[in-house]
Amino acid sequence: MSPRPSSDRLRIGELAERAGVSVATIKFYIRERLLPPAPIKTGQTMGYYDQAYLDRLVLIRTLREEHYLPLRVIRTILAEHGDRPLRPSEAAFLARFGPGVLERLEPQRLSEEAAALRREDLLNRYRLREDELMLLEEMGLIGEGSGKKLRYTATDLSLLDALARAEHIGLTRDRFPVEGLGHYVELLGELARREVRRFTRQAEGVPAAEVETLALRAVEVSEPIVAIVRRKLLLRAVQKELTRQKKPRHPK
Amino acid sequence: MSPRPSSDRLRIGELAERAGVSVATIKFYIRERLLPPAPIKTGQTMGYYDQAYLDRLVLIRTLREEHYLPLRVIRTILAEHGDRPLRPSEAAFLARFGPGVLERLEPQRLSEEAAALRREDLLNRYRLREDELMLLEEMGLIGEGSGKKLRYTATDLSLLDALARAEHIGLTRDRFPVEGLGHYVELLGELARREVRRFTRQAEGVPAAEVETLALRAVEVSEPIVAIVRRKLLLRAVQKELTRQKKPRHPK
Repeated sequence: MSPRPSSDRLRIGELAERAGVSVATIKFYIRERLLPPAPIKTGQTMGYYDQAYLDRLVLIRTLREEHYLPLRVIRTILAEHGDRPLRPSEAAFLARFGPGVLERLEPQRLSEEAAALRREDLLNRYRLREDELMLLEEMGLIGEGSGKKLRYTATDLSLLDALARAEHIGLTRDRFPVEGLGHYVELLGELARREVRRFTRQAEGVPAAEVETLALRAVEVSEPIVAIVRRKLLLRAVQKELTRQKKPRHPK
Repeated sequence: MSPRPSSDRLRIGELAERAGVSVATIKFYIRERLLPPAPIKTGQTMGYYDQAYLDRLVLIRTLREEHYLPLRVIRTILAEHGDRPLRPSEAAFLARFGPGVLERLEPQRLSEEAAALRREDLLNRYRLREDELMLLEEMGLIGEGSGKKLRYTATDLSLLDALARAEHIGLTRDRFPVEGLGHYVELLGELARREVRRFTRQAEGVPAAEVETLALRAVEVSEPIVAIVRRKLLLRAVQKELTRQKKPRHPK
């Protein structure tokens, strides 16, 4: 075979240019196992890349830059669709569900990963300040167990991913500090207590063996209900705020 | 061509048997445009069905019976993947996101569909009682506008789908009446007001043109945060309730 590059035989520099990323980024993705090593080897450290490789690279770039997905979520999405390329519509669809996607795709792997993490790992990985992590722990949002023996769960990682994503779109922590989550804890906590009380009361007479299954499914099916109701009420509150603002500002 | 059925030429009766549904169900799915008419015609009303047809039918059955998705959500999922069969893992993945999936896949079509609906259509389609729908309207959860001029939105349909799904898994309306949503309205409403106030305060100094875009994205990215925080707090409330129940019941 001739080593001369054709449109389907790209050097790493050409690959980088066509995908709109740097060579360093490609090497980083290879180290992070988002991309395999060069598929057409021409030496120890040299090789050519093909069209499929370019497509995969562009997809990773899109998922990163347009949808702000963390690398490990992208890795999972790509693995789940490993044997065929993901179509842009599918990628966009998956991306729209955000970080929670990983937890749903790979609950087992994610919980093993989380259990192996130490506190310092969280601080580094999510670039959290000590006081921010402490606050999240005090609110009971990160870590299970108590004191020095905190264990991390898949849910904790999903929450940190979701917070990182919020920061990425412009809800920076200097403007929107993690303290704000206190409102969520207070009001969603009260809602949780009422829901559990109501469920327990209503489920009387249901065979005990069925109650637990029903409760778990109830948490799952009520999730979209909560999201929709919240969205409705938020949009209404926004409209109210906008009308309110228009009045006092007018004379200025 | 021989009209004798092979493994890839099934009569409607054989098709029904292999898929585990009735012939009437198949005809219903064809009328509802979930399935095309028989792909191999042998007469005006006669024909044969092939393996791909059987696969699609089994997929529909799975999405209905295991994931309780409404027909129009299934129709959208199938259309989105029309040119190739959906793999079971993908179907399960999509299904896990529940009814909200439709709104995300086809926002435009869904809002047109919703706008064309009348009040009676909602009562019939979702088998709602008059007093139930009235309560949902009074809570401001269904319908935009006021009085006789209520218009329905895509969000309204998603909410009704989500409620139907809850009923399907066993949260029946006699045990879990729609009044229960009052807690959601009260507490999520208070949360929405606080979030909007906080957002308005923090976004001071951000150029006006960017505030609206940021607000819409903020609603979107905060959705997984709310879901995760709620799940954490719910599981904690469940554990507390279980410990509480164990004590007084013990002496019995």
